Amino acid sequence: MKNVPLILITNDDGISAPGIRALVDAVKDLGEVIVVAPDSPQSAMGHAVTISKPLRLDKTTHFEGISSYQCSGTPADCVKLAVDKILHRKPDLLLSGINHGSNSSINVIYSGTMSAAVEGAIEGIPSAGFSLCDFAYDADFSLASKTVRQVALSILNNGLPNGVLLNVNVPKINEDECKGIKICRQALAKWEEDFDQRIDPNGRTYYWLTGKFVNYDKGDDTDEWAISNGYVSIVPVQFDLTAHNAIAYLNQWSF
Amino acid sequence: MKNVPLILITNDDGISAPGIRALVDAVKDLGEVIVVAPDSPQSAMGHAVTISKPLRLDKTTHFEGISSYQCSGTPADCVKLAVDKILHRKPDLLLSGINHGSNSSINVIYSGTMSAAVEGAIEGIPSAGFSLCDFAYDADFSLASKTVRQVALSILNNGLPNGVLLNVNVPKINEDECKGIKICRQALAKWEEDFDQRIDPNGRTYYWLTGKFVNYDKGDDTDEWAISNGYVSIVPVQFDLTAHNAIAYLNQWSF
Repeated sequence: MKNVPLILITNDDGISAPGIRALVDAVKDLGEVIVVAPDSPQSAMGHAVTISKPLRLDKTTHFEGISSYQCSGTPADCVKLAVDKILHRKPDLLLSGINHGSNSSINVIYSGTMSAAVEGAIEGIPSAGFSLCDFAYDADFSLASKTVRQVALSILNNGLPNGVLLNVNVPKINEDECKGIKICRQALAKWEEDFDQRIDPNGRTYYWLTGKFVNYDKGDDTDEWAISNGYVSIVPVQFDLTAHNAIAYLNQWSF
Repeated sequence: MKNVPLILITNDDGISAPGIRALVDAVKDLGEVIVVAPDSPQSAMGHAVTISKPLRLDKTTHFEGISSYQCSGTPADCVKLAVDKILHRKPDLLLSGINHGSNSSINVIYSGTMSAAVEGAIEGIPSAGFSLCDFAYDADFSLASKTVRQVALSILNNGLPNGVLLNVNVPKINEDECKGIKICRQALAKWEEDFDQRIDPNGRTYYWLTGKFVNYDKGDDTDEWAISNGYVSIVPVQFDLTAHNAIAYLNQWSF
């Protein structure tokens, strides 16, 4: 047997979340699957890594017939630990998710699911993050699972350009309602914060982060448009954050 | 008195770090300065936001004559709380730092300092993050302070393009050794992980994240080149992570 693909799987909802189980089930026959995922939910962790405390990494039996580990750190920590301490070679594919909830548009910035995929791409691993636009614990992952398999096979067959990973978002619809997969750009949208201010039993104020998602982008080539119109969105994402177009403008400044 | 600039200041090393004091001192005469910073170090927090626990926000007296608050959350939380709960209007400028340690090249992804500036840009605030390439607590901030003032004045005078913020890194050199400011792109570089594996007193294994920084980029237009050659580097940064060049390639895939 030659060149069985090595597939690293992680997420940010934690190793016991239904979404990562759906992901594993969707691709476990495509190669050798290894799971390294957080031992607890790490949503909205962005690209945090753990430097001020040590990490734990323990073998688990969460997935029958699949080698799996849980880590006390963030999704990005999981990828780093997997690459350095667990995997015998660089994987052929990194899949993160399936996230319970959307990571479209600006959410790519806050998402632990996507940070794991970004970390994979930094490591030179073809990587993709998957999210289902349904926060429910018992969400229906059928369309998302089908999508994972399609995208995983496409990446294994075609590869990805250097420095590019995929942000895949699946709308909350049935398989037969889905119009297909659409390659998109990240919509210009943001969260308008509205902290919920409360008083604790000791009389001290505390705040819960809440907010309203506002899409300023009218384009029909965005991930938000696709998801709202019955498509799975795929945004190619890069970790070169340089605003190359702004370099000429800034060079006009005199310091 | 009309149109005094409102300047929001934050960091990731925490409100008591010398770097944020240097930043405040460098610009406090340029407008009305308000500090909202983490109450403890938040390095490497990436773009984490706090959603699973409530936040605390308390007025402090860290800076004489300057309104200041400390927050239990991340740098991005600080910006969100400031905008929603503290500031009477959108600030004219957000400055984050001065970080104790470099945030050049790929470090922009992991940096709490830079995530605060990214969050500012998402909010539509002209924003910049500043880092001194010296991790020492008692580092010499003179060149960095001079740079902060130059950049802050330039932004106030010229503005920044929509969706663009600045990542400013100051080399560990004296003022008279500095050759000037260079507008750069983010170097293609990464950390090669090398986790330090130890055994705790109970016999269980734990890991410390360590690594070696490797610059794969030979370009003389990168931030790494500039810093190594006696320049302050400024990289314009965007939060649209779309790899626009990859869209045509992906559209060739058949699903």
